[in-house]
Amino acid sequence: MAEKGAIIELIALLRLDKQQEMTETLDGMAVQDIAEAMGQLEIDEQIRLLRSLPEERQTDAFSYLGKGQQRDLLEALSNKESRRILHELLPDDRTAFLESLSKEDLENQLKLLAPEDLKQSLKLLGYPEESIGRLMTPRFVSIRPDWTVARALDHIRHEADRGETVNFVFVTDDRGHLLDAIRLKDLILARQDAKVEKLMDGEFYSVQASADREEAVQVIQHYDINTLAVTDRNGVMLGIVTVDDIMDVAEAETTEDFHKLGGTGSLNISIREASPTFLYRKRIGWLMILVVVNLVSGLAIALFEDAIEAVIALVFFLPLIIASSGNAGSQSATLMVRALATGDVEVADWFRLWGKELSVALLLGITMGVAVSLIGVWRGGPELGMELAMVVGLAMLAVVVMGAMLGMLLPFILQRLNMDPATASTPLITSVADVLGILIYFSIASAILTLPSPVT
Amino acid sequence: MAEKGAIIELIALLRLDKQQEMTETLDGMAVQDIAEAMGQLEIDEQIRLLRSLPEERQTDAFSYLGKGQQRDLLEALSNKESRRILHELLPDDRTAFLESLSKEDLENQLKLLAPEDLKQSLKLLGYPEESIGRLMTPRFVSIRPDWTVARALDHIRHEADRGETVNFVFVTDDRGHLLDAIRLKDLILARQDAKVEKLMDGEFYSVQASADREEAVQVIQHYDINTLAVTDRNGVMLGIVTVDDIMDVAEAETTEDFHKLGGTGSLNISIREASPTFLYRKRIGWLMILVVVNLVSGLAIALFEDAIEAVIALVFFLPLIIASSGNAGSQSATLMVRALATGDVEVADWFRLWGKELSVALLLGITMGVAVSLIGVWRGGPELGMELAMVVGLAMLAVVVMGAMLGMLLPFILQRLNMDPATASTPLITSVADVLGILIYFSIASAILTLPSPVT
Repeated sequence: MAEKGAIIELIALLRLDKQQEMTETLDGMAVQDIAEAMGQLEIDEQIRLLRSLPEERQTDAFSYLGKGQQRDLLEALSNKESRRILHELLPDDRTAFLESLSKEDLENQLKLLAPEDLKQSLKLLGYPEESIGRLMTPRFVSIRPDWTVARALDHIRHEADRGETVNFVFVTDDRGHLLDAIRLKDLILARQDAKVEKLMDGEFYSVQASADREEAVQVIQHYDINTLAVTDRNGVMLGIVTVDDIMDVAEAETTEDFHKLGGTGSLNISIREASPTFLYRKRIGWLMILVVVNLVSGLAIALFEDAIEAVIALVFFLPLIIASSGNAGSQSATLMVRALATGDVEVADWFRLWGKELSVALLLGITMGVAVSLIGVWRGGPELGMELAMVVGLAMLAVVVMGAMLGMLLPFILQRLNMDPATASTPLITSVADVLGILIYFSIASAILTLPSPVT
Repeated sequence: MAEKGAIIELIALLRLDKQQEMTETLDGMAVQDIAEAMGQLEIDEQIRLLRSLPEERQTDAFSYLGKGQQRDLLEALSNKESRRILHELLPDDRTAFLESLSKEDLENQLKLLAPEDLKQSLKLLGYPEESIGRLMTPRFVSIRPDWTVARALDHIRHEADRGETVNFVFVTDDRGHLLDAIRLKDLILARQDAKVEKLMDGEFYSVQASADREEAVQVIQHYDINTLAVTDRNGVMLGIVTVDDIMDVAEAETTEDFHKLGGTGSLNISIREASPTFLYRKRIGWLMILVVVNLVSGLAIALFEDAIEAVIALVFFLPLIIASSGNAGSQSATLMVRALATGDVEVADWFRLWGKELSVALLLGITMGVAVSLIGVWRGGPELGMELAMVVGLAMLAVVVMGAMLGMLLPFILQRLNMDPATASTPLITSVADVLGILIYFSIASAILTLPSPVT
């Protein structure tokens, strides 16, 4: 997708110091690709490249860099240049950059802002983390209901530079209350002397600035719109959120779900930029919690130590039984977590899905139970074969059903408790399934093989 | 997000047979919410609700239903109604519906299409599955470079109904070759008597109809655009793909990644609509493959049966050691799979990331090794304590590092082989880590505790 060829050519020209050819290549490149090239350069090379761009493209390219890169670059540029770039950034991009900074860096950068920008930035940063206020840009074009279409279009022509997008134009009253959203297309198609209010249909979507950004994602996806109005709680319009910001948020939220499922805390920064100690801190927590869970597995085994000493062949099947339970659980947990995240399934559907998952789990358990029984016959030999086959077959059926139920139940419970269902990480489900699997397996074995009962 | 209140009210009115109030409520609702309400109704209620809508909104609401629901509804409606709805659907929505059908259903539906629609649908269905051709709509507005802006705007006004979106207008030559894409905004801002070619900057993005739909997702995300032109391989414009289609595709692709990571085949349909036997078929494959892998774990244990009989306390730590290895592996695999999917990391970065992951894994392993050693001291008692602590501490360090390396390596190898890195499902990594973990654990134990050597 990105123009790999152009990027490589650009880097070569820069390193060979061919200024004129480089300027020509830059002319034909999209700012996104220029930013991608900068990602592969040393800081002094980045600065040379940036300075080869016309001023207005410098800020555009800058806005597509990674957050860590933006910080390093601003520190390396002259104060005058940093000031200009910060001033020219779109307010939402500026907020995104500022909120990624440490407290100390933030103070340094705020000093570089023009008074008007500083005021605006502090206001946007005042919204809670992960709220819509942090995402929105306060630049939008608004018109009044009593204007003619001609006047509205004139106003739009005049203000077009101010708006990040003008596919939608917003109708507000004198006090800024949002009344409607009109497609630019409809304004153009309308009679020039008609009143704007004639075009109003009262169908528009808006969200509150203090709401969670996930809400903006859902409204934009559900209603297939490109631009969403943001208001305060009295309905006064504050800004807009556009679909490109939303796609970035949706991607970030999905990445968070992936990481949680894998048992990692949320990173919020690129894995390329994360330091080893940062990654260590994000990962050790879950691993240590799971150590505790797995110790319970050890205790469960210790209960049956005598049984194991009596029929050591039982240990042969141990990894298989407990892993199968965890695997079935991982499957149903990932299916559920994703279905809840996309809204395909809601908490209210639980009961119907539970019945379906139970049938699936029974089918899976029977298939796997039969397969493992055959191995039991072989492994148990002439004396123990049939009994061992029955133990492992039944245990397999039981643990697969148990694992699947666990994997399905946990995300729903978490959702019900208003927690993120992805917290039901597959390592957690695997580990809990291990404990229960061991207990089920040895209990069935004790019952059928008439082994020594658990150590008490 | 969706108007839950309105949906519940609508269903109540329908069931109480209050036709007039229902029509009023429907007037104020978005078609997306009407579709959501229909999802909760029986088929005869759905039909009554649909018939309460004005004709043009019927098709809009229909287009937001699930694929299975669309099929059931079309079968239940009169042929005349089905014909009209199929005719009025946007071509890309029609393709999406048709491609979801079984061969038999497809033939029935194709019979209902008007000759012109049939020709168009067969053409779109002719593109490979998951290609951009299947996603695109052939309705777009194109203008010529030698027209004036005024003529272009006139043409757009005239054709606006034909275009799914006119935020972008495409400039083509007489033979349909795509020359440029111009924002509607820029046309409006331009002088009315200027030539279109004056506005052309040659900066536009296009993809080929036969390319994978993933490419359209990447171009739209990378370049932050709303509408993407689709051409044949000679550059003749065939249609457009819009950002709302792309968001649906991106969601579907991510869901596929989730399912693969959890060890489920790709479903392509809603989990609510999937039958138990379908889900069974999609899940049993991986589970059975993993049974084989886990059997190897059993064989690895069997190698050390004598050692286990000699020091039965070793079994206590077995679940902990092998689970920790799998957990560390799941973490690094999910981090890598996601980073590769979002393009945050590329295969070329592997070597640098490998060094970083090794440091993280060493830190994790040391922390967990120390923790588990302390438990070893307690569990081993006065005689065996120190030795057991050394065994479990070292084994923990070794298996965590091994698991993390495995979890990181596998996605990269798969990507390198042009396979989907998400195929490195966490159950697979967990199971492979189990085998290696058992071997490492008992080998270290044999060496330190001078146990009986493996049965050969």
